[in-house]
Amino acid sequence: MTSSTQVLRWTSGAKPRRQLDELVVEEPLEIQVDTRSVVVTMRTPGHDNDLAAGFLFTEGLIRRRENILKIAPYVRNEMGNVLDVFLAPEVMVDFARFARQSYASSSCGLCGKTSIEFVHRRFAKVKSKLVVSAKALSGLPARLRGEQPTFDRTGGLHAAAIFDVRGKLLVLREDVGRHNAVDKVIGHGLLQGWLPFDRHILMVSGRASFEILQKALAARIPVVAAVSAPSSLAVEFAAQSGQTLVGFLRDDRMNVYSRPARVKFG
Amino acid sequence: MTSSTQVLRWTSGAKPRRQLDELVVEEPLEIQVDTRSVVVTMRTPGHDNDLAAGFLFTEGLIRRRENILKIAPYVRNEMGNVLDVFLAPEVMVDFARFARQSYASSSCGLCGKTSIEFVHRRFAKVKSKLVVSAKALSGLPARLRGEQPTFDRTGGLHAAAIFDVRGKLLVLREDVGRHNAVDKVIGHGLLQGWLPFDRHILMVSGRASFEILQKALAARIPVVAAVSAPSSLAVEFAAQSGQTLVGFLRDDRMNVYSRPARVKFG
Repeated sequence: MTSSTQVLRWTSGAKPRRQLDELVVEEPLEIQVDTRSVVVTMRTPGHDNDLAAGFLFTEGLIRRRENILKIAPYVRNEMGNVLDVFLAPEVMVDFARFARQSYASSSCGLCGKTSIEFVHRRFAKVKSKLVVSAKALSGLPARLRGEQPTFDRTGGLHAAAIFDVRGKLLVLREDVGRHNAVDKVIGHGLLQGWLPFDRHILMVSGRASFEILQKALAARIPVVAAVSAPSSLAVEFAAQSGQTLVGFLRDDRMNVYSRPARVKFG
Repeated sequence: MTSSTQVLRWTSGAKPRRQLDELVVEEPLEIQVDTRSVVVTMRTPGHDNDLAAGFLFTEGLIRRRENILKIAPYVRNEMGNVLDVFLAPEVMVDFARFARQSYASSSCGLCGKTSIEFVHRRFAKVKSKLVVSAKALSGLPARLRGEQPTFDRTGGLHAAAIFDVRGKLLVLREDVGRHNAVDKVIGHGLLQGWLPFDRHILMVSGRASFEILQKALAARIPVVAAVSAPSSLAVEFAAQSGQTLVGFLRDDRMNVYSRPARVKFG
């Protein structure tokens, strides 16, 4: 996941020096469905099957693990940067709907509200009665950092992780793209047969955006926690989806932006 | 750029309290060219004309300011989330090339190298003999923070800024999306007639990815500086494009990843 490069490093008061520096690797991945190109994403190589499965699932192109017959490298691409996902014959993928970026399709015009409604037409809201303690939540950032070795060396990676309600880590993935990291943990769950994650927590190392909440909803995740701030649309989405959204989660504090009844304090 | 919301705030050792919290606004924007939909991006409202112009320019769909006749809100969308860019009649936009995500079009297969070559077929390399002092560079992060009021309140925004070689700020934009912030500063330059930015520095608040270097190249920017880490492909791209890439830029230190001759130390 990293590569080395020569860098000129300067610190105040000293002469610049040539040193080796570790970089996080970024390479394109093309995801094909039955040899048809669906998307090219810039990602950190590794766990590409998780990424492909997760992307197709969280974007609503497939609905369950059984939809996938096989994931294989495209034979004519020796670099391993093209993956082919072969679907079961009965699966009908609505490519046109995906391509037309249908956020814009509402008659009342494009806005956050219609974007949310569009997602809710594909994914039902969350009704989980899960309760998680504030203590368990506040332990997650340290767990994330402890399991994120590449970030320490490069400072360049986003992380996403799935925890159970007691704070046990199920899977963690790092990627240059924050959405890719989320797709990888959900895709891993899909391929392992662990879904739905309806008694689980999705934790992300950065900010919480609309798309991260959308991807979590696809996997039925009731609690999403972020180290940094959520956006307005993420909060609105979570409130309407029945998801608990926690932001600025640190060892000793947090903000709960929606459905606080799932968090037990004291 | 922000909105208020009720939040349950908890700090260790105290009871959770209801408080008002400021959120950065995230809303979709659809960019149309001559009423044809090109992209929907999640962005922070404000400076949408800059964003639309910058996106079309840095993605290579238009080449100069004169290509644009007018940018206007789509009349049937009252929310202001659909913008129409009307082009001069002689401008030919290759929508098919844009749509087919042409990173994948090389005969040797998809990889970082072919992605870079693809960009270089559209945008010539940088040959600027610009020299900037390490002292001027190390003053930029403080300037960026000082001019970024929304981040202080919300912790949720990326910033991009264009500086001249003496460290004078020309334009700064904030956005939930880091690529949007870059498109906004470059789009502003395009609409103001300031391009090329061939004696300028692009500074971003976060990491430096392949796409950020690509967008900088479209505007002929010879020096790109980031507060955090670059990716492997960003470094490779910068080296081949003749761009100077500076990472981990702080008040008292920096790493120069490519073309260090443009940075004058001591």
